[in-house]
Amino acid sequence: MRLEIQTKNFSYPVRIGVLEPITHASKVLVVSDSIVAPLHLDTLLSKLQASKIFTHEMPSGEEHKTWEGIESILESAFEANLSRKDLMLALGGGVVSDMVGFASAIYKRGIAFEIVPTTLLAQVDASVGGKTGINNAYGKNLIGAFHPPRAVHIDPQFLKTLPQREFKAGIAEMIKKAVCFNKDYFEWLEKHPLEKHLSEGIYKSVAIKAEVVAKDEREEGLRMGLNYGHTFAHAIEKVGRYSTHLHGEAVAIGIQMANALACYLGLLDNPTQERIKALLKTYGLNLPYKITDFEGFYKDLQMDKKNNQCICFILPKGLGAFVAREDIDKSTLKEALHAWL
Amino acid sequence: MRLEIQTKNFSYPVRIGVLEPITHASKVLVVSDSIVAPLHLDTLLSKLQASKIFTHEMPSGEEHKTWEGIESILESAFEANLSRKDLMLALGGGVVSDMVGFASAIYKRGIAFEIVPTTLLAQVDASVGGKTGINNAYGKNLIGAFHPPRAVHIDPQFLKTLPQREFKAGIAEMIKKAVCFNKDYFEWLEKHPLEKHLSEGIYKSVAIKAEVVAKDEREEGLRMGLNYGHTFAHAIEKVGRYSTHLHGEAVAIGIQMANALACYLGLLDNPTQERIKALLKTYGLNLPYKITDFEGFYKDLQMDKKNNQCICFILPKGLGAFVAREDIDKSTLKEALHAWL
Repeated sequence: MRLEIQTKNFSYPVRIGVLEPITHASKVLVVSDSIVAPLHLDTLLSKLQASKIFTHEMPSGEEHKTWEGIESILESAFEANLSRKDLMLALGGGVVSDMVGFASAIYKRGIAFEIVPTTLLAQVDASVGGKTGINNAYGKNLIGAFHPPRAVHIDPQFLKTLPQREFKAGIAEMIKKAVCFNKDYFEWLEKHPLEKHLSEGIYKSVAIKAEVVAKDEREEGLRMGLNYGHTFAHAIEKVGRYSTHLHGEAVAIGIQMANALACYLGLLDNPTQERIKALLKTYGLNLPYKITDFEGFYKDLQMDKKNNQCICFILPKGLGAFVAREDIDKSTLKEALHAWL
Repeated sequence: MRLEIQTKNFSYPVRIGVLEPITHASKVLVVSDSIVAPLHLDTLLSKLQASKIFTHEMPSGEEHKTWEGIESILESAFEANLSRKDLMLALGGGVVSDMVGFASAIYKRGIAFEIVPTTLLAQVDASVGGKTGINNAYGKNLIGAFHPPRAVHIDPQFLKTLPQREFKAGIAEMIKKAVCFNKDYFEWLEKHPLEKHLSEGIYKSVAIKAEVVAKDEREEGLRMGLNYGHTFAHAIEKVGRYSTHLHGEAVAIGIQMANALACYLGLLDNPTQERIKALLKTYGLNLPYKITDFEGFYKDLQMDKKNNQCICFILPKGLGAFVAREDIDKSTLKEALHAWL
């Protein structure tokens, strides 16, 4: 299966299926992490042809998605003396592809990169769309660039070694897209356990994202729907210092918070809220959470990069549609989120 | 006077003349340095209208064009909680505008910036074209982004406080463009002392750059002519740890090295070489230089970001034209540069 993602300046292919040979006329720097490299680097290298191949291994984990990590990747690139014609290749989850994307965006003012995503979350979401970046003391993905890859190679085989917890976390991003953009996909997900229908589920998820990103690459309208659950998720992750929750888990909690707010405002009815909850529960994503410091939590929401003083909430409007609301005051939010306080 | 610079995605104005009021609907972070701020910040602030104005002062000098400097600017931006609708405004020379450009390119994946250049070099060259970046251990401007400003406000009045040495260094970039792109401008420069014809000289220089950049924003062909003298200059600056030579001075030396190589290869005749030298001399730019370690110098040339294994030399072909040559071997170069060894 193959999809083509249209960006402002070029289009790139997303291939879904057994990894095909990747060939590049000049040098390639493969970047992976300490968990993925021992599992999959050899497989990738056996499929890769280039004039010269270099590898870089970074420590695994969201807490390493920092400037220091970028500097380390750049150092490997400078040591390899990559030119603007060469390529970086990310092998790993969203952290690796976000970082390689950002490193390649700023190396000599930008070189090309490709992605071989090895987590479900990266396959269905992070690898497509051109968002790259790192975290800092102020929050998540606050430093970065829009820098689309030149190709994405999705091989569901890589997911066989993925821990169950990570696999499930990735499903949150699939449910997110179903709720905001595509009722049919939501109903398909309700009827098709992903353990049995994985490739098709991934394909449908990427197809939705491709359509959204092609219409709004720079997040000026439609693409904002992809942030459903994410403003909350970023605050949850920040509070937990990026180590208590996987990104997808935080998104699952954020989805339920957004739903509670949507219900409170009459945008979503209770039965639909329950349906979304039930689908999350199928994959163990009905996670508990407690907001211990509401004021701090609220401040983190304000700091999220899409926000100015007012917070932009992406709220589902039934299934398959959403609204962006900036007019929710603090006390309204607090009442709507009482179940988490 | 006003020029419009066309980029792939938008165009922006370059205004030349007494600084006009700058208005912005939302927040503005003004970034300046420790030399420029005491001289000109008040003037700028008196012309600036915005919903909220923040200021950031960085230490002056090329040696501060580092990631630490970027982090410091970003910190001010996060403290001000700038949103994607807000603006950074660079007040200063090329170091300040390169850094503010890069910081704004990666802050929340990109916000707008404008430039009020206060050095001749920044007015005639650095502020136009969208190149932003920082130096690192591997060389100059090796980390960065293409991120064009939204407006450039050139007021020659700011140059009254510029030290003579810096003023002259800026002229090297004007001569550079004349030699590679425009014989008429070269002859105009020969006849018009810039002390008396400054605004017109700046206008002509920016106009040439505007045309070049519009035709080749990403440096895939024509724009490479702007690197005339620069591959050498970057090596000279690196050897001197960015403190012995001003950028323009290094460019002036680099121009003479490129000319020597061009003469050696029969691309430039001796009388023309002498004419260029004479024009440089008018402004005290016929600077002496000694390459103490040719092997190290050659390695630095190879590391320059436009190069792969072979080095791409931009060489004048008479006046008003250039060629890019990648076929010069080390011994040829050494012979051509014997005057500096």
